[in-house]
Amino acid sequence: MLPYNLDHVAIAVADLDDALDGYARLYGVTPLYREVIEDQAVEEAMIPLGGSYLQLLRPLAPDTPVGRFLAARGEGLHHVAFAVVDIESAITHLRDQGTHLVDETPRLGGGGRRIAFVHPKALASTLVELVESPR
Amino acid sequence: MLPYNLDHVAIAVADLDDALDGYARLYGVTPLYREVIEDQAVEEAMIPLGGSYLQLLRPLAPDTPVGRFLAARGEGLHHVAFAVVDIESAITHLRDQGTHLVDETPRLGGGGRRIAFVHPKALASTLVELVESPR
Repeated sequence: MLPYNLDHVAIAVADLDDALDGYARLYGVTPLYREVIEDQAVEEAMIPLGGSYLQLLRPLAPDTPVGRFLAARGEGLHHVAFAVVDIESAITHLRDQGTHLVDETPRLGGGGRRIAFVHPKALASTLVELVESPR
Repeated sequence: MLPYNLDHVAIAVADLDDALDGYARLYGVTPLYREVIEDQAVEEAMIPLGGSYLQLLRPLAPDTPVGRFLAARGEGLHHVAFAVVDIESAITHLRDQGTHLVDETPRLGGGGRRIAFVHPKALASTLVELVESPR
């Protein structure tokens, strides 16, 4: 189960417009698209940066995973996402390794891609998202 | 000042060998090289992942920036690095924007590349590293 790319790095922000203004002003980068993902209770903006994205995440409400993250830790780096070709086999491999998963089966994420989260307890207290994407 | 790539995402870890074992076992990824950066008081391992790197950072001692990060927050995502062609002009642009910088002049980072850190107070509580790299 080899991820073949670092798909994106996600940053939790309180105000998406403010954060996008800041990234445009400081770094000259702008989002390719914005999307509300009801299933994750976030609005996300995807900023292309070379072969990866910088993803800015705004919670839709305080009592949601990203809302609680903001309340507990403030804005900042939230998770990292690896691109895989086949998410079912990736999940199977991780389950075989006894990995602590958030999602035992894929669900739909941004851009209509299938995703699964690996729990921070699995490795280095880092929330990892697997994103199924054709190479 | 356009960064042209997401160079790496850095994760602070307590034990570099353990973390590398975990990444190899769960994700099948391995480091291209390991390097001690005395100036930053870290040992880093650079794991290629598509066009970017996953960087694992181990502090050389507790009373260092990454050592204090580990003591305060535990393991986890530490910073994100953007590749720029000309770090001097990037710093000048950021300074002109009134950006809170850690490094007003470039210093040497891993792989002999010139780097500069942007303070988390600048934007979204995110520590950003600029890395000068030819395209």
